[in-house]
Amino acid sequence: MLIDEGLELLTEEQCRALLPTEAIGRIGVTIGALPAIFPVNYQMVGQDIVFRTGTATNLRAAVEGGVVGFEVDHVDPSAHEGWSVLVVGVARRLTDGERAELGDLGLSPWAGPDRANMVRIHPEMTSGRRIAKKGHRPLPA
Amino acid sequence: MLIDEGLELLTEEQCRALLPTEAIGRIGVTIGALPAIFPVNYQMVGQDIVFRTGTATNLRAAVEGGVVGFEVDHVDPSAHEGWSVLVVGVARRLTDGERAELGDLGLSPWAGPDRANMVRIHPEMTSGRRIAKKGHRPLPA
Repeated sequence: MLIDEGLELLTEEQCRALLPTEAIGRIGVTIGALPAIFPVNYQMVGQDIVFRTGTATNLRAAVEGGVVGFEVDHVDPSAHEGWSVLVVGVARRLTDGERAELGDLGLSPWAGPDRANMVRIHPEMTSGRRIAKKGHRPLPA
Repeated sequence: MLIDEGLELLTEEQCRALLPTEAIGRIGVTIGALPAIFPVNYQMVGQDIVFRTGTATNLRAAVEGGVVGFEVDHVDPSAHEGWSVLVVGVARRLTDGERAELGDLGLSPWAGPDRANMVRIHPEMTSGRRIAKKGHRPLPA
């Protein structure tokens, strides 16, 4: 489907296929009534997104139980091509049971062993878009 | 300054030096009371961020006159290194006078000639952080 002068709307199925293809996403939260966005290293668990956050961060407080936005993209500025997927959902901390079951998902703590809180986002809304060029390459299936 | 288990807080001066080093940033807005994040191709004009948006997008309506978050990062998942800078400010459409003065800033429309609205964000708050590893490389000056 083509919308808005060359932006192509992706189906939910396409979005779900694209989400596992990247390693870094951006989490958008509200901190002190102001918008904040941070990059995070994530993994998919089924259709949910799981990422780590520090134990003492504003981010941790902001994501727990809140509605958050999570965005993944792949953009090639030289080719003027790219796609982005946006997930909106409620974020919550992984339970001890989930942590025991899931392990660390390859999300090794970058900044020390205490950086060990894991957050899970269950998608309530998933949308995606791609800049559509004539003769563009097909998306991965 | 080290905060939060290995995250290093950047100075405003470091943030301002990093902002022009990337081409793609992520804009965070609220659309229909829900968070939304989209990648955009941007340029710096002094300390302000300028990017294009379509003429008919939700994004255009959301950014005009609103407080937005704008994030730029560079993350190397394999090296477990990275930095991110977050700008919070009011977004507004470029005036005709500014457009005549600034030209297109190399922000050629990716998706057709009508994709020509340009938005300017003046930073009210700028913050940045880096994952600090022992023996990490210095930031660009």
